[in-house]
Amino acid sequence: MRMYDIIMKKRNGEELSSEEIKFFISGYTKGEIPDYQVSAFLMAIYFRKMNERETADLTMAMVNSGEIVDLSAIEGIKVDKHSTGGVGDTTTLVLGPIVAAAGVPVAKMSGRGLGHTGGTIDKLESFDGFSVEMPIAKFIEDVNKYKIAIGGQTANLAPADKKLYSLRDVTATVDNLSLIASSIMSKKIASGADAIVLDVKTGSGAFMKDEDSSFELAKAMVDIGTHVGRNTIAVITEMDQPLGFAVGNALEVKEAIDTLNGKGPEDLTELCLTLGAHMLVLGNKAKNAEEAREILTEIISSGKGIEKLKELVEAQGGNPEFVTNPDLMPLPAIVEEVKISESGYVKEIKADDIGRAALVLGAGRETKESLIDLSVGIVIHKKIGDFVLKGEAIATIYANDNSKKVEADKMILEAYTIVNEKVEKNKLIKGIVTCQGIKKI
Amino acid sequence: MRMYDIIMKKRNGEELSSEEIKFFISGYTKGEIPDYQVSAFLMAIYFRKMNERETADLTMAMVNSGEIVDLSAIEGIKVDKHSTGGVGDTTTLVLGPIVAAAGVPVAKMSGRGLGHTGGTIDKLESFDGFSVEMPIAKFIEDVNKYKIAIGGQTANLAPADKKLYSLRDVTATVDNLSLIASSIMSKKIASGADAIVLDVKTGSGAFMKDEDSSFELAKAMVDIGTHVGRNTIAVITEMDQPLGFAVGNALEVKEAIDTLNGKGPEDLTELCLTLGAHMLVLGNKAKNAEEAREILTEIISSGKGIEKLKELVEAQGGNPEFVTNPDLMPLPAIVEEVKISESGYVKEIKADDIGRAALVLGAGRETKESLIDLSVGIVIHKKIGDFVLKGEAIATIYANDNSKKVEADKMILEAYTIVNEKVEKNKLIKGIVTCQGIKKI
Repeated sequence: MRMYDIIMKKRNGEELSSEEIKFFISGYTKGEIPDYQVSAFLMAIYFRKMNERETADLTMAMVNSGEIVDLSAIEGIKVDKHSTGGVGDTTTLVLGPIVAAAGVPVAKMSGRGLGHTGGTIDKLESFDGFSVEMPIAKFIEDVNKYKIAIGGQTANLAPADKKLYSLRDVTATVDNLSLIASSIMSKKIASGADAIVLDVKTGSGAFMKDEDSSFELAKAMVDIGTHVGRNTIAVITEMDQPLGFAVGNALEVKEAIDTLNGKGPEDLTELCLTLGAHMLVLGNKAKNAEEAREILTEIISSGKGIEKLKELVEAQGGNPEFVTNPDLMPLPAIVEEVKISESGYVKEIKADDIGRAALVLGAGRETKESLIDLSVGIVIHKKIGDFVLKGEAIATIYANDNSKKVEADKMILEAYTIVNEKVEKNKLIKGIVTCQGIKKI
Repeated sequence: MRMYDIIMKKRNGEELSSEEIKFFISGYTKGEIPDYQVSAFLMAIYFRKMNERETADLTMAMVNSGEIVDLSAIEGIKVDKHSTGGVGDTTTLVLGPIVAAAGVPVAKMSGRGLGHTGGTIDKLESFDGFSVEMPIAKFIEDVNKYKIAIGGQTANLAPADKKLYSLRDVTATVDNLSLIASSIMSKKIASGADAIVLDVKTGSGAFMKDEDSSFELAKAMVDIGTHVGRNTIAVITEMDQPLGFAVGNALEVKEAIDTLNGKGPEDLTELCLTLGAHMLVLGNKAKNAEEAREILTEIISSGKGIEKLKELVEAQGGNPEFVTNPDLMPLPAIVEEVKISESGYVKEIKADDIGRAALVLGAGRETKESLIDLSVGIVIHKKIGDFVLKGEAIATIYANDNSKKVEADKMILEAYTIVNEKVEKNKLIKGIVTCQGIKKI
C-alpha cells in the first residue's frame, strides 16, 4: 500500500477501504508518512468528502493510534458530554454534579486548552486546593464512590488526531464535517465513554455559524457513534450570545453554584436540564427525557446537586467552604460597570467579541504558556431582547489592570447592537439529532 | 500576506492576485513556506484550477525564481522547440541541423534526465569526443558562427519549478493543466527562448493519453506564451506507437543521420518538416509554413542538413567521421531479431512498453545515478497498419546481456497486438494551436 495511491483515489472521488484508512493513520502517527502527503490528502477530502463508513473508520483508526482509557471497573454506563465550544459555557460544572446525583457515573477527563477562559479544570482550581492529579485507580475509586471525579487528560489519547489537527490548522483544511466530527468523537471514545451527549453550538459565537451546518455536524457525529456502537445524542443549541451571564473562571464557578442553588440564569439552567436529561436516559436512569428532567429538577430544588459539588471539591482536596460561600474565591482589584449611552432593545451581542474581551483581561490562554488569572472576567447584565436605558450598566468588568479594563470596556460596547424596535428573545434549543434522525424544534 | 490565506482563497475558488502568486513562489523557493502548505495548495489548484492570467503569473514567478539565460548577444530570433515526451523521439537531432541550416539560431540547452533512453546530450555522446561542456561565451560564439550549439543545462533555471515538481510527483497533483503548462514554459522562457514551438504528444505512449486533454494542454501553453510575449505554436502529434523505428541512443542517432540523408522513417521526416516549418516562420525565415517546408526539404535533399550536423559535431569536439560512417558508433554484443508467431495486421504497439524494454536493456536511466549503455536499444520493423507474416521479424534487439535480451523480447511481443482485419495507418499530425485558436486536422 502506498500513500500516493490513497491520495489519488480520494482525489478521484473513490471510496477508501478500512485498510487504506488504517494504513494512513498508522503511518502518519509513526512519522512514516510525511506532512506534505497528508495535507494534500486532507485537501482532497475537503473537496471529495468522506462517507459515513469512511468517517467511522477514520475515527476508530485515530482512537487506536494511542491509549484507550479503560473505565470498565466503573459500575454503570459512562455517559460523557461534549460541547463544540462557545462563550461563557459553564455547563460541565452544573451538569456533572446533578447527573452524578442521579446515579449516572461522571468520569470526566478534562483539558486546559486555549480559549477565552480556561478549561473545566482551570475553573475548578478556583476552589482553593482543588487538584486533578491522581492515579487512575483513585480516579476510578472516586467515581464508584461519589459517582463523579474530574481528572486531567494525562493519557496519550488519539495522538493521530492531535497531529492531524495541527496540520489542518495551517493548511486551510479544518472545515470538513468528517474531519471535525471524527476529531471530536475519537477523543471521546478514547477516553472511555460508553455513550455520548453532544452540545452542538450554533451561531455567531460558535464554531459553526449557521444552523444547517450545525445540524450536519451533529448528524455526522451521531452517525459515527451509531457506526461504532456508542449511543450518541446531539442537542443543537444557540450561541448567538454568551451562555448565562458570566465569562471568566471564578465568575463562571460562582454562576454554576448559583445554578445548582436554583438561582442561575434561565438559559444555563435550561441547557443543563436538557443535556442532563439525555444523559440520564442514555445512562438508563430514566425512561424518557421528561421523567429525567423531573428527576434533575428535584435534585436541584432539594439541594442534592450543590451537595454533590461540595462532595466533589472535598474529595479532590479543595476547600468545600468555597461552595457555601463563593465570595471566598479570588477577586480582582478592579470591578467596574460598562454603561451604555443609548436606550433601546438588545438586538445582538457578538459572543466572540465578549470572549475576546475576557481573554484581553487575562481569563484565558493565547498560547500554551499563558498564565490564567482566575479572578478576572465579565458579567453581562443584558441579553438579546432585553431593554436597556441610557446610562444603565450592560455589564460588569472584573480586572486587575486598568488599561486592559479600558480595552475590554470598548470591546463590550462594540459587541452590543441596540435598536429601537422590540426584539424577540432567542430560542435556546434548536433541535435534537439521534440515530433515529433529525428533529428541529 | 500569509500562505494560509492564499490556500484558503484558492480552496474557495477565488482568483489569486499576481502578488499572491509571487509571494508563494518566492517564499517556497527560499524555504520559508513549508511543503505541507504547498501540497494542500496544489491540491486546491487541482480542484479549482487557475485561469490564464494566474497561470501566466505562476510561469513568470517560476522563471524569476532562478537564473535567466541571457542570449541577447545571439543575432536573430531564438526559436526553441520542446516535446512533451514520447518513445523513440529523435526529432531534435534532425530539427537542430536543418533549422540552423535555414538560418534560425538554435541555442539548445539540454538535460540528461530520466527516461527510456538518454537525453539529447547523451545521444550526442555517441559521437566520440563530443562535449557540451563550454563557457557561455563560447556557446554564444558558436551559435553566431554555426547557427547551432548544444549546451548542458548548467544554469539554475526555474528552481521553483524543480521543487514544485518533486512535490507534485508524490502528492498526486501532477495532472493539472496550469501546473503542467507553467512547468514546461517556465524552463523554456528561463533558458532564453524568444519564440517556442511545442510538440504536444498524444496517445498511449504520451503523458497525455487522450486527444482532448492534449489540445487543452497545448492551448494552456500557447496562452502562457501569448500572455508573456513569447510567440508560441503547438503541434499536436500522435504517440500511439514509437516515433520512427529506433529506440536507443546510438540507434536513434543513426536514424537521425538517415533522416538528414533523406532516407529516414516517414513519420519522423514528416514531424521534423512540420515542426521545423513553424520554427522558420517564427524565426522570420519564411513567410508561411508552406514556403518554410520547401526550404527545409531542399536543405535535406541538397545535403546541407547532414553537413550542418557534421559541423556541429566537429565544433564541439566530436569525430565528424561518425556522421559519414555511422557504423563507427558503439555496437553491442548481441543483435537479435524478435519474431512473431502469427500473421496479421499490426493494430497496436504499446509505445510505453517498447520504451520500458529499451530501459531494461540499459538505454535509459531509472535513477539519476544509472549509467547509460549507448549501444543498446530496439529497432522496430513494423508499425501500425503494416502486415506481418508468421515467423517474420517485427523488431531487432541490440543488447549486451542475454537475460535482459530475453526479457525485452517478451516485452516487445506483448506490446504488439496483431489482428486479422486490415488496419488503417495512424495520422501523425492531429492539429495545431496558435494564439489565433485551435485547428484540428
